[in-house]
Amino acid sequence: MKREQAKKLAKELVAKMTLDEMASQLTYRAAAIPRLGVPAYNWWNEALHGVARAGTATVFPQAIGMAATFDDALQQTIADTISTEARAKYNMQSALGDRDIYKGLTMWSPNINIFRDPRWGRGQETYGEDPYLTARLGVAFVKGLQGDGDTLKVAACAKHFAVHSGPEAIRHSFDAVARPKDMWETYLPAFEALVKEADVESVMGAYNRVNGEPACGSKVLLKDILRDTWGFKGHIVSDCWAIRDFHENHKVTDTATQSAALAIKYGCDLNCGIVYLQMLAALQEGLVTEEQVTIACERLMTTRYMLGILGDEGSEYDTISYDACDTDANDALAQTVAEKSMVLLSNDGILPLDIDALESVGVIGPNANSIACLEGNYMGTSSRYVTYLEGIRKACEGKARVFYSQGSHLYKKGISDLALPDDRLAEAVAVAKRCDVTVLCLGLDATLEGEEGDTGNEYSSGDKNDLALPKCQQNLLDAVLKTGKPVVLVLSSGSALATKSGNALLQAWYPGQAGGTALANLLFGSVSPSGRLPVTFYKGVDDLPEFTDYSMQNRTYRYFEGEPLYPFGYGLSYTKFKYTDASYQSGALTVTVQNTGAMDADEVVQVYLKDFDSPFAVKPQPVRV
Amino acid sequence: MKREQAKKLAKELVAKMTLDEMASQLTYRAAAIPRLGVPAYNWWNEALHGVARAGTATVFPQAIGMAATFDDALQQTIADTISTEARAKYNMQSALGDRDIYKGLTMWSPNINIFRDPRWGRGQETYGEDPYLTARLGVAFVKGLQGDGDTLKVAACAKHFAVHSGPEAIRHSFDAVARPKDMWETYLPAFEALVKEADVESVMGAYNRVNGEPACGSKVLLKDILRDTWGFKGHIVSDCWAIRDFHENHKVTDTATQSAALAIKYGCDLNCGIVYLQMLAALQEGLVTEEQVTIACERLMTTRYMLGILGDEGSEYDTISYDACDTDANDALAQTVAEKSMVLLSNDGILPLDIDALESVGVIGPNANSIACLEGNYMGTSSRYVTYLEGIRKACEGKARVFYSQGSHLYKKGISDLALPDDRLAEAVAVAKRCDVTVLCLGLDATLEGEEGDTGNEYSSGDKNDLALPKCQQNLLDAVLKTGKPVVLVLSSGSALATKSGNALLQAWYPGQAGGTALANLLFGSVSPSGRLPVTFYKGVDDLPEFTDYSMQNRTYRYFEGEPLYPFGYGLSYTKFKYTDASYQSGALTVTVQNTGAMDADEVVQVYLKDFDSPFAVKPQPVRV
Repeated sequence: MKREQAKKLAKELVAKMTLDEMASQLTYRAAAIPRLGVPAYNWWNEALHGVARAGTATVFPQAIGMAATFDDALQQTIADTISTEARAKYNMQSALGDRDIYKGLTMWSPNINIFRDPRWGRGQETYGEDPYLTARLGVAFVKGLQGDGDTLKVAACAKHFAVHSGPEAIRHSFDAVARPKDMWETYLPAFEALVKEADVESVMGAYNRVNGEPACGSKVLLKDILRDTWGFKGHIVSDCWAIRDFHENHKVTDTATQSAALAIKYGCDLNCGIVYLQMLAALQEGLVTEEQVTIACERLMTTRYMLGILGDEGSEYDTISYDACDTDANDALAQTVAEKSMVLLSNDGILPLDIDALESVGVIGPNANSIACLEGNYMGTSSRYVTYLEGIRKACEGKARVFYSQGSHLYKKGISDLALPDDRLAEAVAVAKRCDVTVLCLGLDATLEGEEGDTGNEYSSGDKNDLALPKCQQNLLDAVLKTGKPVVLVLSSGSALATKSGNALLQAWYPGQAGGTALANLLFGSVSPSGRLPVTFYKGVDDLPEFTDYSMQNRTYRYFEGEPLYPFGYGLSYTKFKYTDASYQSGALTVTVQNTGAMDADEVVQVYLKDFDSPFAVKPQPVRV
Repeated sequence: MKREQAKKLAKELVAKMTLDEMASQLTYRAAAIPRLGVPAYNWWNEALHGVARAGTATVFPQAIGMAATFDDALQQTIADTISTEARAKYNMQSALGDRDIYKGLTMWSPNINIFRDPRWGRGQETYGEDPYLTARLGVAFVKGLQGDGDTLKVAACAKHFAVHSGPEAIRHSFDAVARPKDMWETYLPAFEALVKEADVESVMGAYNRVNGEPACGSKVLLKDILRDTWGFKGHIVSDCWAIRDFHENHKVTDTATQSAALAIKYGCDLNCGIVYLQMLAALQEGLVTEEQVTIACERLMTTRYMLGILGDEGSEYDTISYDACDTDANDALAQTVAEKSMVLLSNDGILPLDIDALESVGVIGPNANSIACLEGNYMGTSSRYVTYLEGIRKACEGKARVFYSQGSHLYKKGISDLALPDDRLAEAVAVAKRCDVTVLCLGLDATLEGEEGDTGNEYSSGDKNDLALPKCQQNLLDAVLKTGKPVVLVLSSGSALATKSGNALLQAWYPGQAGGTALANLLFGSVSPSGRLPVTFYKGVDDLPEFTDYSMQNRTYRYFEGEPLYPFGYGLSYTKFKYTDASYQSGALTVTVQNTGAMDADEVVQVYLKDFDSPFAVKPQPVRV
């Protein structure tokens, strides 16, 4: 049901609750209140690029790959598909009594933080470095998730509010210091858009402090900006165990009750964690008022009524059957998105490959036959992964012979513990020498870049130290290039890397369950690349400020003063487009775009504006063309 | 070249070596002797069911699955294919200068130990519990590996000599005590056959003691039986770091030099490990003679000459190109073997499934989409795994919809750390309820059963505690069966399990790279099952002696006094066979076998003999029929 009606019912319901009962609703594992017909509910659910961690679901490309499509209409279709699967799974699971974590309808997605620094391991979860692109894609994603029905299809969550982009290793104690200009022009606009344009139902606070205040207990962020300035009406949730950080790591409070009091005071309604179990104690200590608890509880009950999972009315989505999950159509959509997400960064003319002219294709690399590199992090479980090797083999069936070598481990010195380092290098070189062309699949996966605590890797806590490939992959790349045979380099990563290129370089991100099919379609030219970089690819971290420096100066295409390796918005096609008749009239820019090449292709039309006369302009810079 | 000529050259070569140089040849990482034209060589290589640990190679079913084919001709074809791939890889790798571990031609395969107790984690590497079957398949495997050319195609190795079958946890200090009857009728016959019939080039000693002597330094085993009685002419290698066990764990010696001396005294020529680096010290201490070192070195050089990898003559196999590795034909062979290896243990008539009559097929279980369960241990890397789910999906394409649920972890309580136990149970039940039939894929993989040190699991050191499924899988099985819908249970394991059955039960072992295709062909009836159990499936470990008891009394079909769950040799077909005109004449039994059913199928004809009048018969028992 709609918010006003839901709010009314929530108020009535909460009015019947005791203080104990209200308090029992404020952590992510909300207890049942049988006497009031309130079932238990676990608020923690994930849907970053498909319903995650809840069993079988369509796995779409990782968020950064979706961003590379620059396609907000497609983004909304993806999110609509995800929420259909979420409802299908919810209906199935709750009918069988499973209401545990990841099985609910409050999705802690999308991640609309600005990918400020390429070292951040969680940058893969974002829509890149540009506030405008992030806002457009975020709004579309939330609209797709939440739907436009009488009830919320699922509740989306804009996270992590705000100014949050690493380092992971120190996120529990770090203070991100941002100038007002960067706050308002970089870190906040996407959140504002999701609140104002998409009516996002939930906002999650970040782990770190922002300009001195812990984000989940920040007067400036939660009260002044989010509630008072933007008029946010949904509920606020803490990041998981972030409120514990107040006293344990940020040291802005001394005790758990003080932390609970600080967070709820500024409007953090729901605690992912257990500090809010201290809420009654905080009440007794006089740190918290009954009104604060009541309001938080009302907001949470409002969301549940809006979802149609409280009370008797139900939801129009209750009839979505489990058949709607993991369908052929959704797989096809995942493939389309993957095709549109991959970015062709260099091509000496070798691509597209003419399969009929090839006798043999080498497929080499630790990511060539890897499922992990299709997935990224926060992923579901697909019933139909197609690895790069599998996709290429299928395309080559009956035509060219495929030779495979793992080539190297993702980051360890060798594959076999007892062997000398680089123990697959000879095989890789032999394959490259043997074959007419080699597709070399390098890069990372979520064991190398990701979230603090989730990754145990050669880098620190999920972040990268630099933009280089792991040493063993660098050795592999060098050896394969040294053969002098044609090499197409395919990079899987959620962030910018700086590598040598072969005859062509394709940035594949983490392309989801159909990644291998999509890659083959691009390599062999049944589809033309149309993806564009949603982040700047730098030549190296030497060109960048310190990772901990949250000033945007000399970061992203908007402020970077150096020469990028590949710029934001960049991406090649197999065809040519001609732009004519550009005109600007009353806020609308129109242009005629004509495909003058030989094959069908998508084109991402980009417009960059700059106000040269603005007093806030950092320095004169040419408009990007 | 042949042994006599190789031996002559080896003697001439070793005669030119200094003592230091000779000693440098006795560990698995043999040093180069440039002045004599002797290149470095790593003796440690594996080919249990395909070239292992050396990169891309065809992955055949695990040894226990090959055994279930009861087909020695097929076994020889498999081994011939493996040795072709080994030569192809060796030629490629050594041309590129890679002569490291796993890249050589001395294969430490097959494992012909008797699978005495179903708890043994390495039983999967064997050909089962029967000395005769083990001998026939072992001989065929060695003949296939070694070839019948002028040079050895590769050198095979009969391991682990002798009386070696767990427990893994105590293998470095355990004394296996076996009666003479069991030695000569159970533990030794397969080794004798491989030496006498297949001229196996190498024998590897076991870790444990046998009747008080460490196997790798046993006068009885190595000298009296192997060399003096059987006339073994090849070289003997220790299991890896087994000689160190002499002083560190068995405590039969006090020092490393004493251990080296004991091992070489009884003819252990090659040390996998580093104790033989003490050989010069042992010489100085007077524990070892120069003659002993000379003989060991000569035997090792003889093998290298026989392989054509020493001297100038080369081998007729030097022309095998890398193209011979990982071919379509080898994949097809792997599929055929997998089809013949799976054993249909029960079938209420549900199999074969009529694909045209099905709207939906559920595929459930931690092994349904698992590559690990295709592989077993000591495996290569395939370029074309087909999981059960993938095989079934392909068979159902355009016909029935496939629903998938992982169902449970292999052994952990849940999939997601934060979730309640059994967090995929609802999904699995929903799938089973939804579908016309469910294929439930349970069992183990090499993370649960395998070798001490290689597995970190809920069982101890790779062995099983009992014959039950891990608890989470038991819960899954119970829940799916409870739906009352048709269920075909597919068990992947290298050893006997005792589980409930669904409407049908198929024992798939670890079926190799084409396991999914093979399974689908059997399920949907394009191929009839023909595999037979190479081990007894017991109802539980309560029916068995202690794991540490090496008496064969009450073990295996030959001596078990209880009622098995499924007997050795058992396996159902989709058709019927009629046996007529059995006759016995001068050592040959002939019988006419007619397929009286409706479909083509293989039949394994088994004959069991017993000498009722033998004074050595343990007790009167009926001949098995």
